[in-house]
Amino acid sequence: MYIDLDGQGPRYAQLIRALKAAILDSRLSAGSRVPASRSLANELGVSRNTVMAAYDQLQAEGFLLGRVGSGSYVADIGNRRTSAQQPTNEALVAPLSAFARRALAVSDGALIPGRQHSDLRYNLQYGLPLTNPALISAWRRELNRASERVELDYPDVQGLLALREQICDYLARRRGVNASPENVLVISGTQQAFALASRVLLDDGDTVVLEDPHYRGARQIFSAYGARVRGVRVDDEGLVPSALPNRARLAVVTPSHQFPTGALLPLARRVELLEWATARKSWLIEDDYDGEFRFGGRPLAALKSLDHDGRVVYIGSYSKTLFPALRLGYMVLPESLGEAFRAAKWLEDRGSNTLEQAALAHFMSSGGFERHLRRAAQSLSARRTAMLAGLRKHTGNAFEIVDSNAGMHLTAWLRSGSHADCERLAVHARERGLGLYTVAPYSFRTSARPGLLLGYAGLPPADIEAAVRLLGRCLLETNLSA
Amino acid sequence: MYIDLDGQGPRYAQLIRALKAAILDSRLSAGSRVPASRSLANELGVSRNTVMAAYDQLQAEGFLLGRVGSGSYVADIGNRRTSAQQPTNEALVAPLSAFARRALAVSDGALIPGRQHSDLRYNLQYGLPLTNPALISAWRRELNRASERVELDYPDVQGLLALREQICDYLARRRGVNASPENVLVISGTQQAFALASRVLLDDGDTVVLEDPHYRGARQIFSAYGARVRGVRVDDEGLVPSALPNRARLAVVTPSHQFPTGALLPLARRVELLEWATARKSWLIEDDYDGEFRFGGRPLAALKSLDHDGRVVYIGSYSKTLFPALRLGYMVLPESLGEAFRAAKWLEDRGSNTLEQAALAHFMSSGGFERHLRRAAQSLSARRTAMLAGLRKHTGNAFEIVDSNAGMHLTAWLRSGSHADCERLAVHARERGLGLYTVAPYSFRTSARPGLLLGYAGLPPADIEAAVRLLGRCLLETNLSA
Repeated sequence: MYIDLDGQGPRYAQLIRALKAAILDSRLSAGSRVPASRSLANELGVSRNTVMAAYDQLQAEGFLLGRVGSGSYVADIGNRRTSAQQPTNEALVAPLSAFARRALAVSDGALIPGRQHSDLRYNLQYGLPLTNPALISAWRRELNRASERVELDYPDVQGLLALREQICDYLARRRGVNASPENVLVISGTQQAFALASRVLLDDGDTVVLEDPHYRGARQIFSAYGARVRGVRVDDEGLVPSALPNRARLAVVTPSHQFPTGALLPLARRVELLEWATARKSWLIEDDYDGEFRFGGRPLAALKSLDHDGRVVYIGSYSKTLFPALRLGYMVLPESLGEAFRAAKWLEDRGSNTLEQAALAHFMSSGGFERHLRRAAQSLSARRTAMLAGLRKHTGNAFEIVDSNAGMHLTAWLRSGSHADCERLAVHARERGLGLYTVAPYSFRTSARPGLLLGYAGLPPADIEAAVRLLGRCLLETNLSA
Repeated sequence: MYIDLDGQGPRYAQLIRALKAAILDSRLSAGSRVPASRSLANELGVSRNTVMAAYDQLQAEGFLLGRVGSGSYVADIGNRRTSAQQPTNEALVAPLSAFARRALAVSDGALIPGRQHSDLRYNLQYGLPLTNPALISAWRRELNRASERVELDYPDVQGLLALREQICDYLARRRGVNASPENVLVISGTQQAFALASRVLLDDGDTVVLEDPHYRGARQIFSAYGARVRGVRVDDEGLVPSALPNRARLAVVTPSHQFPTGALLPLARRVELLEWATARKSWLIEDDYDGEFRFGGRPLAALKSLDHDGRVVYIGSYSKTLFPALRLGYMVLPESLGEAFRAAKWLEDRGSNTLEQAALAHFMSSGGFERHLRRAAQSLSARRTAMLAGLRKHTGNAFEIVDSNAGMHLTAWLRSGSHADCERLAVHARERGLGLYTVAPYSFRTSARPGLLLGYAGLPPADIEAAVRLLGRCLLETNLSA
């Protein structure tokens, strides 16, 4: 009998796998006697105990019959297929769901594990966390503190009450939103808010409105759910309400800092937007992804603060104010939606991680979170200043810079040139060790303006200056400097 | 002007809210002048600075025009609705999706935050964690260790590589499953596996087969997704393959320890099940929720170990081997499904929490996890023994006990009596401070046998003995003792 050990893991487990394969392939046929443990041990160069233990286990699992020592026989386990009859994998693959096919179509390169920027000297990618040693040590203290009271049972599906209370307090003071803990749902990041909203608010074929340009993650999930996704024009003052379609189940908006253009939606447009939604019984999702970071004056109140008719689902994220690995965010839901979203969260994952929630609740109640926000705003402001100064100095008149005095990124529109030019610039820059990203993937129409999305959170000011100097050289080298 | 502060949060924020409400309700009409800061401050008993700061903010947000000091005017923000015209909330509520309506229907009482057992002296609820001081301190050490290297950026959507490697090693040694890290997907608990499978494998109206009885969470999520859920008969040897329907997209099975009956599926039935799936291009989901805890002899290999045709999606959970609050589990996917499940996970939440994954990877690689498993198996075995002894002593012949020598629960079938009797017993027991749960909610058919699901993980042996003694008294008091 030919037994081939695969060399992975302990001998005992290898032998069990090999014998099972032989039985299932009918190389060891039903009723036949397996070799005596001593002879198989000799043949394979393993101890007799190993063979006996393997036989024992196979017997317990029903592959062998008889008693160890007095001889074991292969059990009859039904009409097994021989290797020769085995159909190809291809023929066996059942079709995936419509959701899965769309999910594969929209997520293409996005699934590469980790960011591929190890070969870059400078990376101006948006969404990189602000690395802050003070935050890291403060957060570690909070984790250690929270881990002293490890919770073992299932968490509250809606989120830790202490955290929801802190969120309400924070929203009232900083975002003008009056929420009660019952209307807050803690989730595993902003992306889950879009996913839950897809399930709770949309049926197949419903229309969803996104700003154009917009955050890509939202478009991907709504498309995967089979929604008809439509763009609405954005100008210097953000979303243009008169361009809204007549019917839609849902619109996703970024009124405090339009993503990615940085525009701030004026009050009159906010009111128009709310009236549009109320008249159509549509929902508004306010993605307040970085409304917190506004460098001149206080942050403006959220759209949710004007929501007297319960149209607005508010999403708050900790990926920008703290860091993405935390995987925590929250939603403030209109009264009429609370129960349905809780049910959807319950059915998905039974609630988000308790430890981080407890650490965050204490970080917020102790004042540590807002101290961090003040420090982070100062750091970001210095980085933004360095980037603006560098762009003026090194890129001449090539770009029109949108300076929204807020957030973690700038938009730089190429004054003369095409999307192809912009892409050529980005490719060249990456060859030179500079991570540069165009606005194009965030737009519906390639007719939209060509430009760059310049993230400044991930680099200290000196590196930003150097990165933008390199950008200037790349402009020259690609004949795009104006 | 009547301004009503709501008393929540700082005065400044209260005043802003009150003024906005007045403007939006047209109590302060467009073009009208707001009171001088000094006079409003006097009227409300707040400092003049508070009023000026509020005006300043309202101006920044576009509610007021003009200059602070020289008088501010209410801006015209479009055709606002007066309070009198405001439609009722009822009329405004848009319909929820079909998913949401089904989600609300299936989740009913399940959404009560936290378990309601504080008034119980003894709780025999299944799923309560095994409280183990050694585990808690070991886990705290792992968390502290992992927090020394806080990851800030988005996690690997598929799960930390170090953890996936540990999972593969573990599965090869303990569950007979030969998996490679590329086929492992780390998820936020078993429930998410069912949710992802619903999206990736099912279209509306597809048939899903569940064992009858079965784990309720699976039925709830598949029903919410609009699947046709069918039960298949279970006997003393688990699922009866001949009772499987001719067509189904998917079957969920618990071969190592049928939930909740405890039956162990024999090899011949496993092979039949695999052949059923292959012939129909159907998928099998193996929920190996507690296959690890087997008190006599080694745990049996998983169904997945026989899966040569790539039909089996294997789900592993840490909610039973560690504790539910961890919210971590994993799937081993057939080659053909890996990419689609990764895309679905990416679209849902961008990956599970990194810190716990890092802590778990080290807990596994250091041998701490398996030390814990050995200790936990000993504790569970002692608790099970105490429960069996107690049942023999205190409940006479009332129940037929299924002793599967494994897991964290027993099933006790009522020898004579109806489902109503069983429910009456449970209600009476809860009044007496004993948490007792019937099998009925896990079955499709009320014609199934009446019985109790007795969890023994949550109580030390002495308490189990006392709890079962109380159960015996409850049997007498409800005239159900045999």
